[in-house]
Amino acid sequence: MQLGKIVGTVVSTRKDEKLEGLKLQIVKFINVDGTFTGSLVIAVDSVGAGVGEVVLVAAGSSARQTDVTKDKPVDTVIMAIVDILEVDGNNVYVK
Amino acid sequence: MQLGKIVGTVVSTRKDEKLEGLKLQIVKFINVDGTFTGSLVIAVDSVGAGVGEVVLVAAGSSARQTDVTKDKPVDTVIMAIVDILEVDGNNVYVK
Amino acid sequence: MQLGKIVGTVVSTRKDEKLEGLKLQIVKFINVDGTFTGSLVIAVDSVGAGVGEVVLVAAGSSARQTDVTKDKPVDTVIMAIVDILEVDGNNVYVK
Amino acid sequence: MQLGKIVGTVVSTRKDEKLEGLKLQIVKFINVDGTFTGSLVIAVDSVGAGVGEVVLVAAGSSARQTDVTKDKPVDTVIMAIVDILEVDGNNVYVK
Amino acid sequence: MQLGKIVGTVVSTRKDEKLEGLKLQIVKFINVDGTFTGSLVIAVDSVGAGVGEVVLVAAGSSARQTDVTKDKPVDTVIMAIVDILEVDGNNVYVK
Repeated sequence: MQLGKIVGTVVSTRKDEKLEGLKLQIVKFINVDGTFTGSLVIAVDSVGAGVGEVVLVAAGSSARQTDVTKDKPVDTVIMAIVDILEVDGNNVYVK
Repeated sequence: MQLGKIVGTVVSTRKDEKLEGLKLQIVKFINVDGTFTGSLVIAVDSVGAGVGEVVLVAAGSSARQTDVTKDKPVDTVIMAIVDILEVDGNNVYVK
Repeated sequence: MQLGKIVGTVVSTRKDEKLEGLKLQIVKFINVDGTFTGSLVIAVDSVGAGVGEVVLVAAGSSARQTDVTKDKPVDTVIMAIVDILEVDGNNVYVK
Repeated sequence: MQLGKIVGTVVSTRKDEKLEGLKLQIVKFINVDGTFTGSLVIAVDSVGAGVGEVVLVAAGSSARQTDVTKDKPVDTVIMAIVDILEVDGNNVYVK
Repeated sequence: MQLGKIVGTVVSTRKDEKLEGLKLQIVKFINVDGTFTGSLVIAVDSVGAGVGEVVLVAAGSSARQTDVTKDKPVDTVIMAIVDILEVDGNNVYVK
Protein backbone atom coordinates (compact mmCIF):
# COMPACT_ATOMS: atom_id res chain seq x y z
CA MET A 1 0.00 0.00 0.00
CA GLN A 2 1.00 3.59 -0.39
CA LEU A 3 0.98 6.33 2.23
CA GLY A 4 -1.01 9.41 1.30
CA LYS A 5 -2.76 12.49 2.57
CA ILE A 6 -6.26 13.46 1.45
CA VAL A 7 -6.17 16.98 0.03
CA GLY A 8 -9.51 17.27 -1.72
CA THR A 9 -12.50 15.79 -3.48
CA VAL A 10 -13.69 15.06 -7.01
CA VAL A 11 -17.27 15.77 -8.08
CA SER A 12 -18.52 13.80 -11.09
CA THR A 13 -22.10 13.44 -12.30
CA ARG A 14 -21.41 11.61 -15.56
CA LYS A 15 -19.74 8.35 -14.66
CA ASP A 16 -20.08 4.59 -14.78
CA GLU A 17 -23.33 3.76 -12.97
CA LYS A 18 -21.51 1.44 -10.54
CA LEU A 19 -19.75 4.52 -9.14
CA GLU A 20 -23.00 6.09 -7.85
CA GLY A 21 -22.68 7.02 -4.20
CA LEU A 22 -18.94 6.46 -3.96
CA LYS A 23 -16.78 9.23 -2.49
CA LEU A 24 -13.82 10.13 -4.69
CA GLN A 25 -10.92 11.63 -2.76
CA ILE A 26 -7.78 13.33 -4.08
CA VAL A 27 -4.81 11.70 -2.33
CA LYS A 28 -1.27 13.04 -2.56
CA PHE A 29 1.39 10.44 -1.77
CA ILE A 30 3.70 11.27 1.13
CA ASN A 31 6.99 10.08 2.57
CA VAL A 32 7.17 8.91 6.20
CA ASP A 33 8.25 12.42 7.21
CA GLY A 34 5.04 13.83 5.76
CA THR A 35 6.56 15.51 2.71
CA PHE A 36 4.76 15.02 -0.60
CA THR A 37 6.38 12.71 -3.18
CA GLY A 38 4.94 14.71 -6.07
CA SER A 39 2.43 12.07 -7.25
CA LEU A 40 -1.29 11.87 -6.60
CA VAL A 41 -4.16 9.50 -7.16
CA ILE A 42 -7.95 9.67 -7.05
CA ALA A 43 -9.17 6.98 -4.63
CA VAL A 44 -12.54 5.69 -3.47
CA ASP A 45 -13.02 6.10 0.26
CA SER A 46 -14.12 2.93 2.10
CA VAL A 47 -13.44 3.99 5.69
CA GLY A 48 -14.97 7.46 6.13
CA ALA A 49 -11.70 9.34 5.77
CA GLY A 50 -11.74 13.12 5.34
CA VAL A 51 -9.57 15.90 3.97
CA GLY A 52 -6.30 16.27 5.89
CA GLU A 53 -6.09 12.69 7.11
CA VAL A 54 -3.13 10.39 6.48
CA VAL A 55 -4.33 7.17 4.91
CA LEU A 56 -3.27 3.93 3.26
CA VAL A 57 -4.23 3.34 -0.34
CA ALA A 58 -4.45 -0.07 -2.05
CA ALA A 59 -4.28 -0.30 -5.84
CA GLY A 60 -5.11 -2.69 -8.66
CA SER A 61 -7.47 -5.65 -8.25
CA SER A 62 -6.88 -5.42 -4.49
CA ALA A 63 -8.77 -2.12 -4.58
CA ARG A 64 -11.92 -4.11 -5.42
CA GLN A 65 -11.77 -6.30 -2.29
CA THR A 66 -13.84 -3.95 -0.08
CA ASP A 67 -17.62 -3.99 0.24
CA VAL A 68 -18.00 -0.60 -1.46
CA THR A 69 -15.71 -1.31 -4.44
CA LYS A 70 -16.47 -4.95 -5.30
CA ASP A 71 -16.79 -5.57 -9.09
CA LYS A 72 -16.54 -1.85 -9.86
CA PRO A 73 -14.24 -0.01 -12.31
CA VAL A 74 -12.14 1.34 -9.47
CA ASP A 75 -8.37 0.79 -9.20
CA THR A 76 -7.55 2.64 -5.96
CA VAL A 77 -9.20 2.51 -2.55
CA ILE A 78 -8.56 4.12 0.83
CA MET A 79 -8.72 1.12 3.20
CA ALA A 80 -7.15 2.49 6.41
CA ILE A 81 -6.68 5.73 8.32
CA VAL A 82 -3.21 6.01 9.86
CA ASP A 83 -2.95 6.72 13.61
CA ILE A 84 0.80 6.33 14.09
CA LEU A 85 3.85 5.91 11.87
CA GLU A 86 6.74 4.48 13.85
CA VAL A 87 10.17 4.53 12.20
CA ASP A 88 13.37 3.30 13.89
CA GLY A 89 11.58 3.32 17.26
CA ASN A 90 10.29 6.90 16.96
CA ASN A 91 6.73 8.01 16.32
CA VAL A 92 7.34 10.16 13.25
CA TYR A 93 3.59 10.77 12.82
CA VAL A 94 0.80 10.73 15.37
CA LYS A 95 -2.74 11.60 14.32
CA MET B 1 -7.59 6.44 -10.63
CA GLN B 2 -5.60 9.02 -12.52
CA LEU B 3 -6.68 12.51 -13.56
CA GLY B 4 -6.36 13.22 -17.26
CA LYS B 5 -7.46 15.41 -20.13
CA ILE B 6 -8.57 13.99 -23.46
CA VAL B 7 -6.44 15.51 -26.22
CA GLY B 8 -7.22 13.31 -29.20
CA THR B 9 -8.29 10.03 -30.74
CA VAL B 10 -6.74 6.85 -32.14
CA VAL B 11 -8.03 5.28 -35.35
CA SER B 12 -7.27 1.58 -35.77
CA THR B 13 -8.78 -0.81 -38.31
CA ARG B 14 -6.56 -3.83 -37.62
CA LYS B 15 -7.11 -4.81 -34.01
CA ASP B 16 -8.38 -7.57 -31.74
CA GLU B 17 -11.98 -8.25 -32.80
CA LYS B 18 -13.25 -7.56 -29.26
CA LEU B 19 -12.21 -3.93 -29.74
CA GLU B 20 -14.73 -3.33 -32.56
CA GLY B 21 -16.87 -0.28 -31.83
CA LEU B 22 -14.82 0.95 -28.90
CA LYS B 23 -13.67 4.57 -28.86
CA LEU B 24 -9.96 4.95 -28.17
CA GLN B 25 -9.06 8.31 -26.65
CA ILE B 26 -5.61 9.84 -26.10
CA VAL B 27 -5.48 10.99 -22.48
CA LYS B 28 -2.68 13.14 -21.09
CA PHE B 29 -2.34 12.92 -17.31
CA ILE B 30 -2.70 16.20 -15.42
CA ASN B 31 -2.00 17.58 -11.97
CA VAL B 32 -4.83 19.14 -9.94
CA ASP B 33 -3.81 22.57 -11.28
CA GLY B 34 -4.40 21.36 -14.84
CA THR B 35 -0.74 21.16 -15.88
CA PHE B 36 0.34 18.05 -17.77
CA THR B 37 2.52 15.52 -15.94
CA GLY B 38 4.25 14.48 -19.15
CA SER B 39 2.74 10.97 -19.41
CA LEU B 40 -0.14 9.81 -21.56
CA VAL B 41 -2.27 6.73 -22.05
CA ILE B 42 -4.70 5.43 -24.67
CA ALA B 43 -8.00 4.68 -22.92
CA VAL B 44 -11.34 3.21 -23.94
CA ASP B 45 -14.19 5.65 -23.39
CA SER B 46 -17.15 4.24 -21.41
CA VAL B 47 -18.97 7.47 -20.56
CA GLY B 48 -19.20 9.47 -23.80
CA ALA B 49 -16.32 11.82 -22.98
CA GLY B 50 -14.93 14.07 -25.68
CA VAL B 51 -11.74 15.94 -26.55
CA GLY B 52 -10.93 18.66 -24.02
CA GLU B 53 -12.74 17.07 -21.09
CA VAL B 54 -11.09 16.30 -17.74
CA VAL B 55 -11.69 12.66 -16.85
CA LEU B 56 -10.82 9.86 -14.46
CA VAL B 57 -9.03 6.83 -15.83
CA ALA B 58 -8.97 3.37 -14.19
CA ALA B 59 -6.21 0.92 -15.10
CA GLY B 60 -5.44 -2.80 -14.91
CA SER B 61 -8.10 -5.45 -14.37
CA SER B 62 -10.35 -2.71 -12.97
CA ALA B 63 -10.50 -1.27 -16.50
CA ARG B 64 -12.49 -4.36 -17.52
CA GLN B 65 -15.29 -3.81 -14.97
CA THR B 66 -17.47 -1.66 -17.25
CA ASP B 67 -20.12 -2.96 -19.66
CA VAL B 68 -18.13 -1.90 -22.72
CA THR B 69 -14.76 -3.34 -21.64
CA LYS B 70 -15.71 -6.63 -19.95
CA ASP B 71 -13.38 -9.55 -20.91
CA LYS B 72 -11.57 -7.42 -23.51
CA PRO B 73 -7.81 -6.83 -23.97
CA VAL B 74 -8.11 -3.32 -22.60
CA ASP B 75 -6.08 -2.05 -19.63
CA THR B 76 -7.32 1.54 -19.33
CA VAL B 77 -10.85 2.96 -19.28
CA ILE B 78 -12.37 6.41 -18.89
CA MET B 79 -15.06 5.81 -16.23
CA ALA B 80 -15.96 9.36 -15.10
CA ILE B 81 -16.06 12.93 -16.39
CA VAL B 82 -14.88 15.44 -13.79
CA ASP B 83 -17.18 18.35 -12.92
CA ILE B 84 -15.27 19.87 -10.01
CA LEU B 85 -11.88 19.38 -8.37
CA GLU B 86 -11.90 20.79 -4.85
CA VAL B 87 -8.53 21.12 -3.10
CA ASP B 88 -8.08 22.60 0.39
CA GLY B 89 -11.61 24.03 0.23
CA ASN B 90 -11.15 25.74 -3.13
CA ASN B 91 -12.62 24.70 -6.48
CA VAL B 92 -9.40 24.48 -8.49
CA TYR B 93 -11.27 23.15 -11.52
CA VAL B 94 -14.89 23.65 -12.57
CA LYS B 95 -16.12 22.20 -15.87
CA MET C 1 -2.87 1.16 -23.37
CA GLN C 2 0.50 2.50 -24.35
CA LEU C 3 1.60 3.77 -27.76
CA GLY C 4 4.66 2.04 -29.17
CA LYS C 5 6.67 1.30 -32.27
CA ILE C 6 7.91 -2.20 -33.11
CA VAL C 7 11.70 -2.06 -33.56
CA GLY C 8 12.67 -5.72 -33.51
CA THR C 9 12.10 -9.31 -32.50
CA VAL C 10 13.13 -11.74 -29.76
CA VAL C 11 14.14 -15.33 -30.56
CA SER C 12 13.82 -17.79 -27.68
CA THR C 13 13.97 -21.58 -27.86
CA ARG C 14 13.97 -22.32 -24.13
CA LYS C 15 10.77 -20.94 -22.71
CA ASP C 16 7.52 -21.86 -21.00
CA GLU C 17 5.78 -24.37 -23.27
CA LYS C 18 2.65 -22.19 -23.47
CA LEU C 19 4.73 -19.63 -25.38
CA GLU C 20 5.34 -21.97 -28.34
CA GLY C 21 4.38 -20.30 -31.60
CA LEU C 22 3.93 -16.83 -30.15
CA LYS C 23 5.71 -13.93 -31.83
CA LEU C 24 7.69 -11.78 -29.39
CA GLN C 25 8.19 -8.21 -30.58
CA ILE C 26 10.43 -5.50 -29.15
CA VAL C 27 8.28 -2.38 -28.72
CA LYS C 28 9.69 1.03 -27.84
CA PHE C 29 7.14 3.36 -26.29
CA ILE C 30 6.56 6.62 -28.16
CA ASN C 31 4.96 10.00 -27.57
CA VAL C 32 2.18 11.23 -29.87
CA ASP C 33 4.81 13.09 -31.92
CA GLY C 34 6.61 9.81 -32.60
CA THR C 35 9.61 10.44 -30.36
CA PHE C 36 10.72 7.59 -28.12
CA THR C 37 10.03 7.87 -24.38
CA GLY C 38 13.12 5.83 -23.51
CA SER C 39 11.28 2.72 -22.25
CA LEU C 40 10.64 -0.53 -24.05
CA VAL C 41 8.72 -3.75 -23.55
CA ILE C 42 8.67 -7.21 -25.11
CA ALA C 43 5.11 -7.91 -26.26
CA VAL C 44 3.28 -10.83 -27.82
CA ASP C 45 1.80 -9.96 -31.20
CA SER C 46 -1.90 -10.82 -31.61
CA VAL C 47 -2.69 -8.81 -34.75
CA GLY C 48 0.07 -9.58 -37.26
CA ALA C 49 2.01 -6.38 -36.68
CA GLY C 50 5.50 -6.02 -38.10
CA VAL C 51 8.69 -4.05 -37.48
CA GLY C 52 8.23 -0.32 -38.01
CA GLU C 53 4.51 -0.25 -37.23
CA VAL C 54 2.94 1.98 -34.57
CA VAL C 55 0.83 -0.15 -32.24
CA LEU C 56 -1.16 -0.20 -29.02
CA VAL C 57 0.04 -2.40 -26.20
CA ALA C 58 -2.12 -3.68 -23.31
CA ALA C 59 -0.46 -4.84 -20.08
CA GLY C 60 -1.22 -6.92 -17.00
CA SER C 61 -4.08 -9.40 -16.83
CA SER C 62 -5.68 -7.55 -19.76
CA ALA C 63 -2.83 -8.86 -21.92
CA ARG C 64 -4.29 -12.36 -21.48
CA GLN C 65 -7.72 -11.47 -22.93
CA THR C 66 -6.83 -12.30 -26.56
CA ASP C 67 -7.17 -15.72 -28.19
CA VAL C 68 -3.41 -16.16 -28.53
CA THR C 69 -2.47 -15.13 -24.96
CA LYS C 70 -5.27 -16.67 -22.85
CA ASP C 71 -3.97 -18.34 -19.63
CA LYS C 72 -0.34 -17.82 -20.65
CA PRO C 73 2.54 -16.25 -18.68
CA VAL C 74 2.42 -13.14 -20.84
CA ASP C 75 1.97 -9.63 -19.42
CA THR C 76 2.04 -7.49 -22.57
CA VAL C 77 0.20 -7.88 -25.88
CA ILE C 78 -0.03 -5.89 -29.10
CA MET C 79 -3.78 -5.68 -29.66
CA ALA C 80 -4.10 -2.94 -32.31
CA ILE C 81 -2.18 -1.37 -35.19
CA VAL C 82 -2.55 2.40 -35.28
CA ASP C 83 -3.73 4.02 -38.54
CA ILE C 84 -4.16 7.61 -37.38
CA LEU C 85 -3.32 9.63 -34.26
CA GLU C 86 -5.44 12.78 -34.13
CA VAL C 87 -4.45 15.41 -31.57
CA ASP C 88 -6.21 18.77 -31.20
CA GLY C 89 -7.91 18.27 -34.56
CA ASN C 90 -4.70 17.49 -36.45
CA ASN C 91 -3.56 14.11 -37.76
CA VAL C 92 -0.14 13.95 -36.08
CA TYR C 93 0.44 10.44 -37.39
CA VAL C 94 -0.95 8.69 -40.45
CA LYS C 95 0.19 5.18 -41.32
CA MET D 1 9.40 -9.28 -6.16
CA GLN D 2 11.18 -6.29 -4.75
CA LEU D 3 13.99 -6.23 -2.20
CA GLY D 4 13.30 -4.12 0.87
CA LYS D 5 14.25 -3.42 4.44
CA ILE D 6 11.66 -3.05 7.20
CA VAL D 7 12.14 0.32 8.90
CA GLY D 8 8.97 0.71 10.92
CA THR D 9 5.32 0.00 11.59
CA VAL D 10 1.91 1.54 10.87
CA VAL D 11 -0.79 1.68 13.56
CA SER D 12 -4.35 2.00 12.27
CA THR D 13 -7.55 1.51 14.24
CA ARG D 14 -10.03 2.68 11.58
CA LYS D 15 -9.64 0.38 8.61
CA ASP D 16 -11.41 -2.19 6.47
CA GLU D 17 -12.57 -4.94 8.83
CA LYS D 18 -10.69 -7.59 6.83
CA LEU D 19 -7.45 -5.94 7.94
CA GLU D 20 -8.03 -6.72 11.63
CA GLY D 21 -5.01 -8.46 13.13
CA LEU D 22 -2.71 -7.89 10.18
CA LYS D 23 0.71 -6.38 10.83
CA LEU D 24 1.48 -3.40 8.60
CA GLN D 25 5.19 -2.82 8.07
CA ILE D 26 6.96 0.15 6.48
CA VAL D 27 9.37 -1.25 3.89
CA LYS D 28 11.98 0.86 2.12
CA PHE D 29 13.17 -0.63 -1.16
CA ILE D 30 16.90 -1.35 -1.38
CA ASN D 31 19.47 -2.14 -4.02
CA VAL D 32 21.57 -5.33 -3.75
CA ASP D 33 24.30 -3.32 -2.02
CA GLY D 34 21.83 -2.35 0.73
CA THR D 35 21.41 1.29 -0.28
CA PHE D 36 17.87 2.67 -0.34
CA THR D 37 16.26 3.34 -3.73
CA GLY D 38 14.20 6.21 -2.34
CA SER D 39 10.80 4.48 -2.58
CA LEU D 40 8.80 2.81 0.15
CA VAL D 41 5.68 0.72 0.54
CA ILE D 42 3.42 -0.36 3.39
CA ALA D 43 3.22 -4.16 3.33
CA VAL D 44 1.36 -6.83 5.27
CA ASP D 45 3.71 -9.22 7.05
CA SER D 46 3.00 -12.92 6.42
CA VAL D 47 6.25 -14.44 7.72
CA GLY D 48 6.92 -12.85 11.11
CA ALA D 49 9.49 -10.38 9.86
CA GLY D 50 10.66 -7.54 12.11
CA VAL D 51 12.19 -4.10 11.87
CA GLY D 52 15.69 -4.16 10.39
CA GLU D 53 15.24 -7.33 8.36
CA VAL D 54 15.80 -7.57 4.61
CA VAL D 55 12.73 -9.06 2.94
CA LEU D 56 11.04 -9.81 -0.34
CA VAL D 57 7.79 -8.05 -1.15
CA ALA D 58 5.18 -9.25 -3.66
CA ALA D 59 2.67 -6.80 -5.11
CA GLY D 60 -0.68 -6.76 -6.89
CA SER D 61 -3.05 -9.73 -6.93
CA SER D 62 -0.06 -11.94 -6.03
CA ALA D 63 -0.05 -10.22 -2.63
CA ARG D 64 -3.38 -11.94 -1.90
CA GLN D 65 -2.03 -15.48 -2.40
CA THR D 66 -0.95 -16.00 1.23
CA ASP D 67 -3.15 -17.38 4.01
CA VAL D 68 -3.21 -14.06 5.86
CA THR D 69 -4.01 -11.83 2.86
CA LYS D 70 -6.50 -13.93 0.86
CA ASP D 71 -9.47 -11.88 -0.48
CA LYS D 72 -8.37 -8.78 1.42
CA PRO D 73 -7.85 -5.21 0.18
CA VAL D 74 -4.09 -5.59 0.40
CA ASP D 75 -1.74 -5.01 -2.54
CA THR D 76 1.67 -5.71 -0.98
CA VAL D 77 2.86 -8.60 1.19
CA ILE D 78 6.15 -9.61 2.79
CA MET D 79 6.46 -13.28 1.77
CA ALA D 80 10.13 -14.07 2.50
CA ILE D 81 12.98 -13.03 4.79
CA VAL D 82 16.31 -12.85 2.96
CA ASP D 83 19.25 -14.83 4.39
CA ILE D 84 21.80 -14.30 1.62
CA LEU D 85 22.08 -12.18 -1.51
CA GLU D 86 24.68 -13.62 -3.86
CA VAL D 87 25.76 -11.45 -6.79
CA ASP D 88 28.44 -12.47 -9.30
CA GLY D 89 29.57 -15.27 -6.99
CA ASN D 90 29.95 -13.06 -3.90
CA ASN D 91 27.69 -12.92 -0.87
CA VAL D 92 26.88 -9.21 -0.90
CA TYR D 93 24.46 -9.63 2.02
CA VAL D 94 24.37 -12.20 4.78
CA LYS D 95 21.77 -11.98 7.54
CA MET E 1 7.63 -8.56 -20.58
CA GLN E 2 10.87 -6.97 -19.57
CA LEU E 3 14.37 -7.82 -20.74
CA GLY E 4 16.82 -8.68 -17.97
CA LYS E 5 20.08 -10.35 -17.10
CA ILE E 6 20.41 -12.73 -14.15
CA VAL E 7 23.17 -11.47 -11.86
CA GLY E 8 22.66 -13.52 -8.71
CA THR E 9 20.51 -15.53 -6.35
CA VAL E 10 18.48 -15.03 -3.18
CA VAL E 11 18.63 -17.55 -0.33
CA SER E 12 15.62 -17.53 2.03
CA THR E 13 14.71 -20.13 4.62
CA ARG E 14 11.83 -18.28 6.28
CA LYS E 15 9.21 -17.72 3.64
CA ASP E 16 5.65 -18.53 2.62
CA GLU E 17 5.42 -22.32 2.46
CA LYS E 18 4.23 -22.20 -1.17
CA LEU E 19 7.67 -20.87 -2.10
CA GLU E 20 9.48 -24.07 -1.02
CA GLY E 21 11.70 -25.36 -3.79
CA LEU E 22 11.41 -22.29 -6.00
CA LYS E 23 14.61 -20.70 -7.30
CA LEU E 24 14.76 -16.95 -6.67
CA GLN E 25 16.98 -15.09 -9.12
CA ILE E 26 18.19 -11.49 -9.01
CA VAL E 27 17.45 -9.96 -12.42
CA LYS E 28 18.75 -6.57 -13.51
CA PHE E 29 16.72 -5.01 -16.31
CA ILE E 30 18.67 -4.22 -19.49
CA ASN E 31 18.22 -2.20 -22.65
CA VAL E 32 18.48 -3.90 -26.05
CA ASP E 33 22.15 -2.90 -26.21
CA GLY E 34 22.81 -4.84 -22.99
CA THR E 35 23.30 -1.84 -20.72
CA PHE E 36 21.56 -1.93 -17.35
CA THR E 37 18.53 0.34 -16.83
CA GLY E 38 19.26 0.71 -13.12
CA SER E 39 16.27 -1.29 -11.85
CA LEU E 40 16.17 -4.86 -10.64
CA VAL E 41 13.65 -7.47 -9.60
CA ILE E 42 13.69 -10.79 -7.77
CA ALA E 43 12.05 -13.38 -10.03
CA VAL E 44 11.13 -17.04 -9.76
CA ASP E 45 12.86 -19.15 -12.39
CA SER E 46 10.55 -21.42 -14.41
CA VAL E 47 12.89 -22.36 -17.27
CA GLY E 48 16.20 -23.39 -15.69
CA ALA E 49 17.96 -20.10 -16.38
CA GLY E 50 21.32 -19.39 -14.72
CA VAL E 51 23.47 -16.44 -13.74
CA GLY E 52 24.66 -14.43 -16.74
CA GLU E 53 21.79 -15.34 -19.02
CA VAL E 54 19.55 -12.79 -20.75
CA VAL E 55 15.91 -13.58 -20.01
CA LEU E 56 12.35 -12.37 -20.30
CA VAL E 57 10.43 -11.60 -17.12
CA ALA E 58 6.62 -11.49 -16.80
CA ALA E 59 5.02 -9.60 -13.90
CA GLY E 60 1.73 -9.36 -12.05
CA SER E 61 -0.95 -12.04 -12.22
CA SER E 62 0.66 -13.27 -15.46
CA ALA E 63 3.63 -14.39 -13.35
CA ARG E 64 1.34 -17.04 -11.83
CA GLN E 65 0.47 -18.69 -15.17
CA THR E 66 3.36 -21.17 -15.13
CA ASP E 67 3.30 -24.64 -13.56
CA VAL E 68 5.80 -23.67 -10.85
CA THR E 69 4.16 -20.38 -9.82
CA LYS E 70 0.42 -21.19 -9.98
CA ASP E 71 -1.56 -19.79 -7.00
CA LYS E 72 1.63 -18.65 -5.24
CA PRO E 73 2.53 -15.25 -3.76
CA VAL E 74 4.90 -14.53 -6.62
CA ASP E 75 4.66 -11.46 -8.85
CA THR E 76 7.58 -11.98 -11.23
CA VAL E 77 8.67 -15.03 -13.22
CA ILE E 78 11.42 -15.81 -15.71
CA MET E 79 9.51 -17.50 -18.54
CA ALA E 80 12.01 -17.43 -21.44
CA ILE E 81 15.75 -17.43 -22.10
CA VAL E 82 16.71 -15.08 -24.93
CA ASP E 83 18.76 -16.50 -27.84
CA ILE E 84 18.72 -13.52 -30.18
CA LEU E 85 17.64 -9.89 -30.03
CA GLU E 86 17.15 -8.50 -33.52
CA VAL E 87 16.72 -4.72 -33.84
CA ASP E 88 16.34 -2.93 -37.18
CA GLY E 89 17.51 -6.04 -39.02
CA ASN E 90 20.67 -6.49 -36.93
CA ASN E 91 21.33 -9.14 -34.30
CA VAL E 92 22.25 -6.87 -31.40
CA TYR E 93 22.50 -9.84 -29.02
CA VAL E 94 23.29 -13.48 -29.73
CA LYS E 95 23.58 -15.95 -26.85
